[in-house]
Amino acid sequence: MALIDCLSTTEALAAIFSDDGVLRAMLEFEAALARGAAAAGAIPDFAARTISEAASGKGFDTAAIAAAARAGATPAIPLVKALRDRVQAIDAPSAAYVHLGATSQDVTDTALVLLLKEARAPIAADQQRLDRALRRLSERHASTTMIGRTLLLPATPITFGLKVAGWSSAIARSWRRLDDAWERSLVIQLGGAAGTLAALGEKAPGVVEGTARELGLRPAPPWHTDRDRLGAVVTACGLHVAALGKAARDVSLLMQAEVREAAEQGGGSSTMPQKRNPSGCALVLAAATRLPGLVSSYLTAMVQEHERALGGIQAEWPIVSAAVQATGAAVAALAGVVEGLDVDPDRMRFNFELTGGAVFAERAAMLLAPAIGRDRAQQLVVGAVAQSRESAVPFAVALRDAARAEPAIPAGLLDDLDVPERYLGESERIRIRLLAETDE
Amino acid sequence: MALIDCLSTTEALAAIFSDDGVLRAMLEFEAALARGAAAAGAIPDFAARTISEAASGKGFDTAAIAAAARAGATPAIPLVKALRDRVQAIDAPSAAYVHLGATSQDVTDTALVLLLKEARAPIAADQQRLDRALRRLSERHASTTMIGRTLLLPATPITFGLKVAGWSSAIARSWRRLDDAWERSLVIQLGGAAGTLAALGEKAPGVVEGTARELGLRPAPPWHTDRDRLGAVVTACGLHVAALGKAARDVSLLMQAEVREAAEQGGGSSTMPQKRNPSGCALVLAAATRLPGLVSSYLTAMVQEHERALGGIQAEWPIVSAAVQATGAAVAALAGVVEGLDVDPDRMRFNFELTGGAVFAERAAMLLAPAIGRDRAQQLVVGAVAQSRESAVPFAVALRDAARAEPAIPAGLLDDLDVPERYLGESERIRIRLLAETDE
Amino acid sequence: MALIDCLSTTEALAAIFSDDGVLRAMLEFEAALARGAAAAGAIPDFAARTISEAASGKGFDTAAIAAAARAGATPAIPLVKALRDRVQAIDAPSAAYVHLGATSQDVTDTALVLLLKEARAPIAADQQRLDRALRRLSERHASTTMIGRTLLLPATPITFGLKVAGWSSAIARSWRRLDDAWERSLVIQLGGAAGTLAALGEKAPGVVEGTARELGLRPAPPWHTDRDRLGAVVTACGLHVAALGKAARDVSLLMQAEVREAAEQGGGSSTMPQKRNPSGCALVLAAATRLPGLVSSYLTAMVQEHERALGGIQAEWPIVSAAVQATGAAVAALAGVVEGLDVDPDRMRFNFELTGGAVFAERAAMLLAPAIGRDRAQQLVVGAVAQSRESAVPFAVALRDAARAEPAIPAGLLDDLDVPERYLGESERIRIRLLAETDE
Amino acid sequence: MALIDCLSTTEALAAIFSDDGVLRAMLEFEAALARGAAAAGAIPDFAARTISEAASGKGFDTAAIAAAARAGATPAIPLVKALRDRVQAIDAPSAAYVHLGATSQDVTDTALVLLLKEARAPIAADQQRLDRALRRLSERHASTTMIGRTLLLPATPITFGLKVAGWSSAIARSWRRLDDAWERSLVIQLGGAAGTLAALGEKAPGVVEGTARELGLRPAPPWHTDRDRLGAVVTACGLHVAALGKAARDVSLLMQAEVREAAEQGGGSSTMPQKRNPSGCALVLAAATRLPGLVSSYLTAMVQEHERALGGIQAEWPIVSAAVQATGAAVAALAGVVEGLDVDPDRMRFNFELTGGAVFAERAAMLLAPAIGRDRAQQLVVGAVAQSRESAVPFAVALRDAARAEPAIPAGLLDDLDVPERYLGESERIRIRLLAETDE
Repeated sequence: MALIDCLSTTEALAAIFSDDGVLRAMLEFEAALARGAAAAGAIPDFAARTISEAASGKGFDTAAIAAAARAGATPAIPLVKALRDRVQAIDAPSAAYVHLGATSQDVTDTALVLLLKEARAPIAADQQRLDRALRRLSERHASTTMIGRTLLLPATPITFGLKVAGWSSAIARSWRRLDDAWERSLVIQLGGAAGTLAALGEKAPGVVEGTARELGLRPAPPWHTDRDRLGAVVTACGLHVAALGKAARDVSLLMQAEVREAAEQGGGSSTMPQKRNPSGCALVLAAATRLPGLVSSYLTAMVQEHERALGGIQAEWPIVSAAVQATGAAVAALAGVVEGLDVDPDRMRFNFELTGGAVFAERAAMLLAPAIGRDRAQQLVVGAVAQSRESAVPFAVALRDAARAEPAIPAGLLDDLDVPERYLGESERIRIRLLAETDE
Repeated sequence: MALIDCLSTTEALAAIFSDDGVLRAMLEFEAALARGAAAAGAIPDFAARTISEAASGKGFDTAAIAAAARAGATPAIPLVKALRDRVQAIDAPSAAYVHLGATSQDVTDTALVLLLKEARAPIAADQQRLDRALRRLSERHASTTMIGRTLLLPATPITFGLKVAGWSSAIARSWRRLDDAWERSLVIQLGGAAGTLAALGEKAPGVVEGTARELGLRPAPPWHTDRDRLGAVVTACGLHVAALGKAARDVSLLMQAEVREAAEQGGGSSTMPQKRNPSGCALVLAAATRLPGLVSSYLTAMVQEHERALGGIQAEWPIVSAAVQATGAAVAALAGVVEGLDVDPDRMRFNFELTGGAVFAERAAMLLAPAIGRDRAQQLVVGAVAQSRESAVPFAVALRDAARAEPAIPAGLLDDLDVPERYLGESERIRIRLLAETDE
Repeated sequence: MALIDCLSTTEALAAIFSDDGVLRAMLEFEAALARGAAAAGAIPDFAARTISEAASGKGFDTAAIAAAARAGATPAIPLVKALRDRVQAIDAPSAAYVHLGATSQDVTDTALVLLLKEARAPIAADQQRLDRALRRLSERHASTTMIGRTLLLPATPITFGLKVAGWSSAIARSWRRLDDAWERSLVIQLGGAAGTLAALGEKAPGVVEGTARELGLRPAPPWHTDRDRLGAVVTACGLHVAALGKAARDVSLLMQAEVREAAEQGGGSSTMPQKRNPSGCALVLAAATRLPGLVSSYLTAMVQEHERALGGIQAEWPIVSAAVQATGAAVAALAGVVEGLDVDPDRMRFNFELTGGAVFAERAAMLLAPAIGRDRAQQLVVGAVAQSRESAVPFAVALRDAARAEPAIPAGLLDDLDVPERYLGESERIRIRLLAETDE
Repeated sequence: MALIDCLSTTEALAAIFSDDGVLRAMLEFEAALARGAAAAGAIPDFAARTISEAASGKGFDTAAIAAAARAGATPAIPLVKALRDRVQAIDAPSAAYVHLGATSQDVTDTALVLLLKEARAPIAADQQRLDRALRRLSERHASTTMIGRTLLLPATPITFGLKVAGWSSAIARSWRRLDDAWERSLVIQLGGAAGTLAALGEKAPGVVEGTARELGLRPAPPWHTDRDRLGAVVTACGLHVAALGKAARDVSLLMQAEVREAAEQGGGSSTMPQKRNPSGCALVLAAATRLPGLVSSYLTAMVQEHERALGGIQAEWPIVSAAVQATGAAVAALAGVVEGLDVDPDRMRFNFELTGGAVFAERAAMLLAPAIGRDRAQQLVVGAVAQSRESAVPFAVALRDAARAEPAIPAGLLDDLDVPERYLGESERIRIRLLAETDE
């Protein structure tokens, strides 16, 4: 894990996209190509064996390959050369069969797909943890009442279970989109120089099938300049991280010292002993800050020229790698946040008072309107809100005082005005439906 | 159509997102809400009738509503006020039932969905034209041979039919994604102040169902701060326009005076009489330039606070409107480009010669390697490429000359080297598969 | 002001970028070109007079021009045609001199610059209001003590004056950058077909000078595909709006009902009588959500081909127009927010208590360390923080209790621990310096 | 250099942003802080010596620090802990003075600035090479005539020297902006917990001065959440890379086999022997694809909360690091491209013929108009263009034929029509001015 990127990945993902991981993916392609070609009768078996052996060895100099990549604008050229040299040293006649029929982009694209394939499991595992934790949290707080807030200000009561169900359903939907796009992206790239597989002659279809089988990828027509499958993964990462970010932002707002309705376990500070920082939320929000730009770069890169692009394709590796790692980092971080979330229902209730109870104003207007008309009801309510703000008297008290002067208002009408449970509306039904409908 | 945006929309879409269109969508919501509420017994029938009547009238002052919107950071407040005033004037007792149970965002979100719903048909119609034109073009040029180009340089031969099939399949896949996301986005927003529908009491579910039915939208739990469905539309617009942009870039490159293999009907110049400009491609590429940034803004906006966002939601209208209009403009423009495309197979063939025939170099190396080994084959080929460049002798001629000096090379081996049809590989099979597999 | 964009502009800016404004700017260019050309002897005086007259007339059909623009991918072609028709009708011989020597992009680029020129004053006026209000606010609260917050949690005390000075200095710096870029962007575009002015022959330099003088713009070599001056304006808009957004985010956080340290005048709600929403902050944050994507699109568009771009240039008008209007909307909104800001120093002080006083923990550790060592000091402090959290005893009280058990701690050492004014460090000196150093 | 990023950096820059480089920068801050604090009398000299010694040592475990960073959402916490442990081991009493008065962000921000400082020289060196090569190239081709192209099609003649001067001046302007922003960004960050330096008491100003002096940075008020100086660097990177990208796009278009007017030295292909790819242009264009998204992410991150952000700040390191490295990679690559550019004036001249000479159409219309009127002139020219296209007769020949039938056209008027040098207009004067005016 590079120090400069340490907040934007997980250890598992950093390993996958490390020099070793990237090298191995490229060599895996070359070895699978050789074995696939041999199985299809396009190259001799001995060559496939030698190439496989050479490709599985250690000791490739990734730094040298990386440094040489810029000359040809692809790491595939020095990689293939290094592999060919190695094969040559083991068994010279096999060398002519290295990379046969493939082009540089076949290596780099399929390697990227292999890295995606590998990255899927650890992210899915964290996602599963997150999903489970969210559902559990929502269930547990199905009837925990709290202030609903719009534009950061008290609106009307909701339940914490409802709020969490909102996070859960959006995250489940966006995960489904991502997972689906991910699955569709797992196709081999093998097209040769201009995507016609001409260098493989009649054996071409068999070589593609065989190589794909070796790699556990689906065969597909070459997609050298049709980047939509990868683009769908990257944009779905963007949508997913945005959904994660929404939850993280909410948690971090609830965790403010003045609100304190929920708190992640968090991390410390290098100087302030009292700090229990929303570190997990910070990581999620950092990912949510980065993804939109990464998505934008990927979309820009997709406008690719003819049969291989100039600029677009060469930009993709760092974009996809950063997008996937940041997504994984965000899923892992939010899973940790939700699993360890301390929720404080007492404080949630206390905050109704702390904020003076204006959260009941809409309900008050609703209750009063039938008796005294909408306009007069609004007047009374606005007056009580103002009085409550000035004099620190709770809104409900102020309004009851005012209501007493209005004979048209039935006695007792406002008695339970400040009982939040009486104004939850469809909260519970919606909550249940949100948790149920993840199949969209 | 605003002059400043005139290259980024179509007339149909500009009308949909015009002041009239936006106003009508908001009023449609209010009218449907009233009728839905009346049907559910939540408000009296007479009120629904009055509200419907008032909402369908002309003469709302959109400029005044727009100007007043900033005070409350939503056009819904002045819109509701204007409607209520009108209802009041028609039948005062109905006024209390205007907008009952809804919040500002219910109006603006559902209005946006209604605009999306309306925008779908014209874009789909153009997309259908485009799809048909692409398939036809690919079929017609199934065996039209041309240079395949990588990094803007000749690689190996392909067919124009294959190139077009690549455009077609990527565009078909991304359209399917967009169309699917579009369909899923057509849900009503109706949640009231904090998304619990509390103000509607027990009638809430019926009101939601009824209002949705009136609008031809699916009912759904409130999604005030869960923007993923709209986000999926916007990102799918980004992917689609990128696929369109790829095709437009190719066409514009083929249309260069030095290449001239294909040309759109195009537009003229204000000063140069000879110009037949790739105007359609320019519009597509302009959209492809804008979408990534719009997608990025939308994803950023998705990290929304609590039960209604501060900043995110207020940014969405212009983003979605611009993204959808630019997408529609790009689809329409590319449909025009493809429908009217002049293809010049003779010039395609001539360009093999113009570029010296180096496009056959890979094939030459493949043919020679079995006879004289991979390394020697490369040497001969590279030498012939160089000689061809310097002396303007075609590559195949230069290579045949050089081959004569090598006794190991069978006579006649290179005779058809420069016949592009002999090196098309799987072009036709891949083309057919690309056109067939649009179901992914 | 279009309804769909109503939260993203001001009335003054919407008028500038309206159809009338854009049309007038294009016509102004054509008229100035004619007068400039006449002054340089490149066209007859009578033609300049006729063209000027025709260009100043009313009744151009902007809708028709907009609709016709897509055919040639520029509104300049139908505009020039409409103008020429009009000139023809007034005085036929003058018609040949319309647009003489200019190319479409000369019209659209210079028109865009003219719109920028016009937009500068209203934005600068709001910026001046904002700057003044910020400085005044900072001065007024030079010694108003409040909680400094990191990662949304209490850190150590600061003054509100210091916080505002931070806003002020960042905004002043970014304004200076924007204003500077704006000034540099006010150059004419006049290059003719390929930027050589060849059609104007020897009179070219005089025509450029004359036209620029007529328009109040600086002459400059053609910049058809060198977009950096406009790019500098757009990126500086991005930086400025980000600085505005930071202030708006802070205000909106302070305005939360649980914090209530400051409040903008704000706007109401369509349903909740108690709401006084941070509408101004919402507009600023909406702009801050949009600008990064707009900047990104502009930068992407800058990679322009040869002597006129394909796609890049056609994307620019809506990007620049949206960026400038959103910037102006944000400046105006924040000026309103700051000018009307209610600050509640009592609540600021109360929040020290509300949050238990943990904000004094760092200071406590600093005070204790010399007496009992850093590690032991940390232990005591962490213990007191925990105890304060659990028992709702203020941190300072809990720590003093614990300290009594440590003989090495001098009596009275912690007496003023919870007096925030004793731990403001360099707040005032930094504040003064921030307000003074706007000249960077 | 990480394999995944190998096309997006240079060796020098990869080393600067490597684990070693980042670690060293953070330790350098801590050592300088200790020495600065000692010089100001805030900590004992012996502690400064021990801390300096410990900080300069080898053997910090960057992997462990990176892995531990996520817990507290900053690498500074584990870094400070590792340093303190080391100091403790050397001289226990010094340990209490490690990081004294600083906060995590002081370390990470100042470290980032130190990395920027280091990265400046290698980029500036490449930029100087580029600038020199561009000026030389422009001078050498001051009178090399070529087709000017708009929307990728022939417009009117220009000189290659003029085209290069356009690249040169835009790049020089954007470099000046970047260099200026870079210089302004080299300020220390030292503010302590909430930016008041309270933990340093009265010694604070001296500590800041001393630490800055040790690091060779300018002192400045804390800028924890005012990110505009870094933002100005990142946006200026975006503008600069866009200017570089414009030049690279042009070169790559000129290098097409059908155009062949210029060619970079380029790189090879893994499979096609004939390929001399525009690898340098590809690297530049890849950077131009990435920067807009990186800029967008940075601008989004700038909206930072209160005295330390949640999400924004944690996203910055990878953004800035990627932006700076991609910028450096682009400058280096374009310098290589321009220094090694093969220009083919003969081919430039040949392409006038290849494209049929329609590039002279505007001039023809200009020449004819005085004799036969603008409309008739246009008719003749359009006819000749069409005839030339259909019959492959050069345009000038076709027009002269047509002109003979018009008695009003003076004999010989079109004799030099197809001599491009006669229609260069102000090319040379503009070229000279572009190269001269880099002082904006």
